[in-house]
Amino acid sequence: MHLIDGKAVSAQIKLEIAEEVGRIREAGGKIPHLAAVLVGHDGGSETYVASKVRTCEEVGFKSSLIRYEEDVTEEELLACVERLNGDPDVDGFIVQLPLPAHISEQKIIEAIDYRKDVDGFHPVNAGRMSIGLPCFISATPAGILELLKRYEIETKGKHCVVLGRSNIVGKPMAMLMMQKAYPGDCTVTVCHSRSENLKEMCLRADIIIVALGAPEFLKADMVKEGVIVIDVGTTRMPSSVTKSGFKLVGDVKFDEVSPKCSYITPVPGGVGPMTIVSLMKNTLLAGKKAIYT
Amino acid sequence: MHLIDGKAVSAQIKLEIAEEVGRIREAGGKIPHLAAVLVGHDGGSETYVASKVRTCEEVGFKSSLIRYEEDVTEEELLACVERLNGDPDVDGFIVQLPLPAHISEQKIIEAIDYRKDVDGFHPVNAGRMSIGLPCFISATPAGILELLKRYEIETKGKHCVVLGRSNIVGKPMAMLMMQKAYPGDCTVTVCHSRSENLKEMCLRADIIIVALGAPEFLKADMVKEGVIVIDVGTTRMPSSVTKSGFKLVGDVKFDEVSPKCSYITPVPGGVGPMTIVSLMKNTLLAGKKAIYT
Repeated sequence: MHLIDGKAVSAQIKLEIAEEVGRIREAGGKIPHLAAVLVGHDGGSETYVASKVRTCEEVGFKSSLIRYEEDVTEEELLACVERLNGDPDVDGFIVQLPLPAHISEQKIIEAIDYRKDVDGFHPVNAGRMSIGLPCFISATPAGILELLKRYEIETKGKHCVVLGRSNIVGKPMAMLMMQKAYPGDCTVTVCHSRSENLKEMCLRADIIIVALGAPEFLKADMVKEGVIVIDVGTTRMPSSVTKSGFKLVGDVKFDEVSPKCSYITPVPGGVGPMTIVSLMKNTLLAGKKAIYT
Repeated sequence: MHLIDGKAVSAQIKLEIAEEVGRIREAGGKIPHLAAVLVGHDGGSETYVASKVRTCEEVGFKSSLIRYEEDVTEEELLACVERLNGDPDVDGFIVQLPLPAHISEQKIIEAIDYRKDVDGFHPVNAGRMSIGLPCFISATPAGILELLKRYEIETKGKHCVVLGRSNIVGKPMAMLMMQKAYPGDCTVTVCHSRSENLKEMCLRADIIIVALGAPEFLKADMVKEGVIVIDVGTTRMPSSVTKSGFKLVGDVKFDEVSPKCSYITPVPGGVGPMTIVSLMKNTLLAGKKAIYT
């Protein structure tokens, strides 16, 4: 069993990005600038955004954090998006989800200029991805592709089962794994809460990508020997052991599944750290105008 | 075995559209207007476009046919798209594919205003479809959904295998069949030329949608008893029997597969006729500004 070390890979990628930023700086080019919009004080969102800002600093990007209280109106938030769309210094920006119930997340996402949509959630980016055109691929799927690539995992012709059909992980992951590309070229099956034959599908899978948000859902009796398991789950569970008072639990019962795997990502330290570096890579691409001019 | 009669269903839908156009006319509303752009004189394209124009007449739409010779430049064609985008009388339009090799199909597709893109090929429509937002669904997948609906075929939790990963059929079909909707809510598997386990997957499928363009690819020993088969294949093969000198052959070896099916679409007379009425439905939606304002 090989552990896929997302922490090590992400550290390596951060170095690569930092080197490129160094070269841009030396050449007198524009330093990539990521802005993050944070609404309210949700613990998870605070942590994620703080981590994104910190990573910007590590790789040498410029970053801005724009905060709103929980009671910000949709109009105010849309006006903020418009400002960021029009700000030539901002190369890319994200609006941290979830948003309060009185604000339409979809409306906000669609208001973002797709050329600055480094989260890859805008319909133009989702559509271009599914067609196989250059685009901002959302961070979690992009991070998973990167892990498969760095560990040189063969994917062509393999059966990849994706558990979950969310717009931010399950669906894009499925589309990417079926493209004529590496990683990709898989037979892809998407299972979800309504699937009658989920266990049977998992047992036949060469690669399983679990993105259900259901702690320890995937058990040893659901996978075959030699399977590759990518665990996207990160549920915050209360813990009396950790200093923070919580721990992250994946969608895979790691202790019993991992002995059967050829490769597996742990939680934490697997897909999680890759998500943020993928956002950084998208920001670098946005800064270089490598995808859209 | 039930034959899914696309010809009868499409005739019924044409009546329904014609009735609605009648009501619009009586109310003094704007008659939906579809424009079609045809480049060159390819036999298949000529037939398809003629059939679209004829169907417009049948349902009471206004239609325009814009023809270019094979040697039209990309600039000329882009200028035509711009004119149609800006023409307030044109509710929707299509550029018949394939285009000559010196013209980028993707560039043309992306130049079309997505609000008039009744073929549903623009990235905005592809993206909105994958996210589950209102959009123009491309004609063949939309026609297949309509057939499943009209025959009240249960799809929830079923295993749907899509053979083929084209941008116009395989990929959108897969995305639609996995949505939380009816028809939909399936476990979806996409197989293609690189799949190692295609036959095994087909044998486990409750629903098989074949869109490979490989005549008589699906054989009886690849399907289980009671399967539902949707045949998207329409390969033109030379024939000494028909007046036209060719016949349409599907991707399914109909004679041997059909006895094992609970439902099956024939070729011709299955998915084919539905494709054109789906285009008419999209044009009606465009005329009513039901999806985009």
